[in-house]
Amino acid sequence: MTRCALCDRIDTSSEYRCTCGGPLQLDHFKGSIKEGGNVWSAYRDFFPYNLSKEDSLGEGNTPLIRAKRLSTKFGINLYLKNETVNPTWSFKDRGTIFGIKRALELGYKRIGTVSTGNMAASVACYGAYHGSRILVLVPTDIHEDKIGQISIYGPEIIGVEGDYGELYYESLDMDDIYFINSDNPYRIEGYKSMAFEIASDIDASHVIIPTSSGGLFRGIVKGYEELFQNHILSDLPKFIAVQAAGCSPIHRAFEEGEPVKRWGPPHTIAKAISNPFPPSGDAVLRKLKELKGTCAAVNDHGIIEAQKNIARDGIYCQPASAVGVAALPQLINDMGQGSKVVSLITGSGMKVEGRSTKVNTVTMSDLREKI
Amino acid sequence: MTRCALCDRIDTSSEYRCTCGGPLQLDHFKGSIKEGGNVWSAYRDFFPYNLSKEDSLGEGNTPLIRAKRLSTKFGINLYLKNETVNPTWSFKDRGTIFGIKRALELGYKRIGTVSTGNMAASVACYGAYHGSRILVLVPTDIHEDKIGQISIYGPEIIGVEGDYGELYYESLDMDDIYFINSDNPYRIEGYKSMAFEIASDIDASHVIIPTSSGGLFRGIVKGYEELFQNHILSDLPKFIAVQAAGCSPIHRAFEEGEPVKRWGPPHTIAKAISNPFPPSGDAVLRKLKELKGTCAAVNDHGIIEAQKNIARDGIYCQPASAVGVAALPQLINDMGQGSKVVSLITGSGMKVEGRSTKVNTVTMSDLREKI
Repeated sequence: MTRCALCDRIDTSSEYRCTCGGPLQLDHFKGSIKEGGNVWSAYRDFFPYNLSKEDSLGEGNTPLIRAKRLSTKFGINLYLKNETVNPTWSFKDRGTIFGIKRALELGYKRIGTVSTGNMAASVACYGAYHGSRILVLVPTDIHEDKIGQISIYGPEIIGVEGDYGELYYESLDMDDIYFINSDNPYRIEGYKSMAFEIASDIDASHVIIPTSSGGLFRGIVKGYEELFQNHILSDLPKFIAVQAAGCSPIHRAFEEGEPVKRWGPPHTIAKAISNPFPPSGDAVLRKLKELKGTCAAVNDHGIIEAQKNIARDGIYCQPASAVGVAALPQLINDMGQGSKVVSLITGSGMKVEGRSTKVNTVTMSDLREKI
Repeated sequence: MTRCALCDRIDTSSEYRCTCGGPLQLDHFKGSIKEGGNVWSAYRDFFPYNLSKEDSLGEGNTPLIRAKRLSTKFGINLYLKNETVNPTWSFKDRGTIFGIKRALELGYKRIGTVSTGNMAASVACYGAYHGSRILVLVPTDIHEDKIGQISIYGPEIIGVEGDYGELYYESLDMDDIYFINSDNPYRIEGYKSMAFEIASDIDASHVIIPTSSGGLFRGIVKGYEELFQNHILSDLPKFIAVQAAGCSPIHRAFEEGEPVKRWGPPHTIAKAISNPFPPSGDAVLRKLKELKGTCAAVNDHGIIEAQKNIARDGIYCQPASAVGVAALPQLINDMGQGSKVVSLITGSGMKVEGRSTKVNTVTMSDLREKI
């Protein structure tokens, strides 16, 4: 059953969003952990689909690494959840696989996404592997180099003139294409697997989540909530959403106690988390309030420093993934000595500019004809 | 016990190479597979060290993916062993971890490697994680961009004027630094884990191995031989070494029935396998002959085409990793319909030029003073 993450209304009229504007999500699952196997089989009661060997590219089941130097530096037990070792080198793969399963179940021949980075590469890769026709919508001002990794998987890539945030909503009305965007309900279900893996490894006191659209944050929290509701965990960790100061609409709203408002043009090196109008922003705020979580913003100087320190502890991550560690100096006072803190390392530092590829571009109004 | 991989002599006077010039290797292990856990614990009888959770960054235990489109195209069951999801996104991590363990066991404070690519990044990363001082020796003509990933882990990087092949041998005489080069005996032991994982997943008829220095080939074969000698497997697969035509000294020697001679300057996009004077070349030839394996060389056009086809089957690999698939058209006649063929996908396609960093350079004769 699908319910709005903002107003709790049950909504069966749409796949993606409630009439109130909030993002839809599947109701919480009931179940228990099964013996053996990987996260997808051990926690299969909690996922909308069983994954077969043929479905999978080996996503998830990533290492949780104790950051030796950073733990000493901050006087805590800091663990890094290394999502850079997924099949397309970011956490997106965990959600993409369920998005694809949903699209195929509904009989869609075409699958799309609105993204310029990790998510586009992930959807293009899984779409190719499953034999689906893939459409990636990007803004026209995207640097040609940025789509190198995306294009190798062979999707159709179209640059669209106009407002990028608007394109997210525009895409949801395209009836013959299933869009797996940042907070698609099935994508969120896949992200729960990270919570399950962390909880099976350690009893975390704090989980720090780089936050852009809000989809990852919602998935982690929903995973932990399901473990708690099914008496697998007796406590929830404290959840901390971190944004880059140069694009931090959720942090601003959290501080002001207001709903999320559109941010101006992003100015940060943490490009992978620079969504100026996060579609799950208010749903994140709701959870932060309900679960007494907190929100932080960090500047680029701190991000670069943190990226270097994370590498010395064994993981070369992209700048967006370093915001959790960059936020530690402002968070540490509220953490007890010896706290068990997990920071999600969402994507690889190798995700830099690669091959150049030309993109066909259209206006927003011409988009429907073009596809 | 350490024995020469070329002349079988037992040699305890050196860590790396026999007086005959051949590479040393540990004697074959005896044991059985243990229940549960990952490859390092299940096959612990066959490794020189037990790995603890603190030792590991999560290397190995990678997915074996059935290549759907390529299998159909060639009428075989083609499987891709995805080594791009290791902690530094290449297979090198499997060998580096045992190299580091060996260096720490011997009490070395400094660890070095001669490499410009995957191996340098891997050694720099694991060295940082284990708190060792790392030295990376590179040729002076290396493009600054190439060492982006290496430098993030914080090693000392020195460019050395002179012959790069010579630098490999020069490094082995530096008594106060433990060098984990391409065919270091402990590195080879780590590569065996790939054979163990493949054999536990499928009964492969052919295993195709991109080959440069020869270290990877030797590790895979040694792993399979140990399974055979311990009656875990009743047959060996056919081993196929593949090189890039623009730098194929082992292939040339195989065709001519001669020992490996130095190749001229490499001309290929498969940079990660362009060693013009492979230190384990003759040891590879010996095994190819003994086990009735074969050797192929492929041109850059075929490599680029194969890289694209591998991506459509779900893995974006670097050009060097695509040589196995690129060789299929010339190998397919000798494979039966429905053969189970594994091609090793050794490193990520994201491993392109990244950040620029300046390198200090010295002459070969000044090197000892400098370090």
